[in-house]
Amino acid sequence: MKKGLIVSCQAEEGSPFNSPQFIAAFAKAAELGGAVGVRVRDPENVRAVADVTDLPIIGLTKGLFDSGGVLVTPTIDDVLRLVDSGADIIAFDATIRRRPGGMSGLEFLRAVRAAIHSPVLADISNVHEGLAAAEEGADFIATTLSGYVEAPVRSKYEPDFSLIKEIASRTKTPVIAEGRIWSPEQAKTAVDCGAFAVCIGSAITRPVDIVRRFVDSLSDLEQTAEI
Amino acid sequence: MKKGLIVSCQAEEGSPFNSPQFIAAFAKAAELGGAVGVRVRDPENVRAVADVTDLPIIGLTKGLFDSGGVLVTPTIDDVLRLVDSGADIIAFDATIRRRPGGMSGLEFLRAVRAAIHSPVLADISNVHEGLAAAEEGADFIATTLSGYVEAPVRSKYEPDFSLIKEIASRTKTPVIAEGRIWSPEQAKTAVDCGAFAVCIGSAITRPVDIVRRFVDSLSDLEQTAEI
Repeated sequence: MKKGLIVSCQAEEGSPFNSPQFIAAFAKAAELGGAVGVRVRDPENVRAVADVTDLPIIGLTKGLFDSGGVLVTPTIDDVLRLVDSGADIIAFDATIRRRPGGMSGLEFLRAVRAAIHSPVLADISNVHEGLAAAEEGADFIATTLSGYVEAPVRSKYEPDFSLIKEIASRTKTPVIAEGRIWSPEQAKTAVDCGAFAVCIGSAITRPVDIVRRFVDSLSDLEQTAEI
Repeated sequence: MKKGLIVSCQAEEGSPFNSPQFIAAFAKAAELGGAVGVRVRDPENVRAVADVTDLPIIGLTKGLFDSGGVLVTPTIDDVLRLVDSGADIIAFDATIRRRPGGMSGLEFLRAVRAAIHSPVLADISNVHEGLAAAEEGADFIATTLSGYVEAPVRSKYEPDFSLIKEIASRTKTPVIAEGRIWSPEQAKTAVDCGAFAVCIGSAITRPVDIVRRFVDSLSDLEQTAEI
């Protein structure tokens, strides 16, 4: 997977593409285009994707923190269902936020380790969380949540290169650059910053968002952050 | 449609998205994202798209010149079937190449005028063809075929801005910038060059091509022209 592209194949609620059949088509497109992996939400989509490609599947579910923020893979039951559906790697929230029930991200990681043997990927928002997850033995660190926990992002089209660079320079755990990567130049820069691989979602698999970005540029609309 | 985005919703042969259901989903995504029109190939896809959106549909079919080059909307029968399926505007090849049977693009335009009352869009490859089509009364001129007829393109990711600019400055017929537009900045530049609207296909509706572009950039592969 080194220097490879991972394609996040997820559809927002209400999207015309929000069905396992469409998610699987995007995963197949990822494979045909030369991606090295896919990131897929929910067991039914994981199963549909596993049916059409042999690419490694990073599986996740989504729930909510008590605060209302998105929580990646809330429960051990979710983890088991994802593995059962064909997920090869399990992504989970490893930010400092406490899960409903009180568990921290690192405590959840230990519980996942006790439950399954698959590699795990820690979604983090800052350097501290990334290094803590690496120390705790996460197999991959992904910068997915930068800008979605505390400090708001400046632009929804600008990756957090400094975070990628700092974590990559301070741990040997592979760092996956994820979040707000829209152009090939940004993907390349992420690798130059030390990313092991790059994960891209919206710019490839969310046509409504892609269209909106072009429409905004034609309308001279300011492209501000949207969290 | 002024300064608007038109989304070309077409899938290549063998693509996981090559079915009316998927084409319609892309058209719906175009609408949800704020596009002002769609460009759709083949009556069955036009019909599926017309079922899900009220956006104006530019319809076309594809055939081949005797030389093997792609011919946009070969016959008057195609035109009639497109209109019958719900196409609002008909696109056709208006290059200087002779069609099978010997008709020129402009002769075909006259035949289309005699057959239907819908607006027509002339796909051209150079200034001469664009001005000739405008003079002949085409309702729209699109730069779709620049780089695919004679002079090979330098990069498959670089629009022909000079063609857009020159045609737009020499005719009042609306010019639609189409061909190799991949970034919002390029779309904006096309409008600054005088384009009435911008039509984008691959960068939005061809996930395999989008993935490949990212993969190539990560692999340091040279991004050369591919016609």
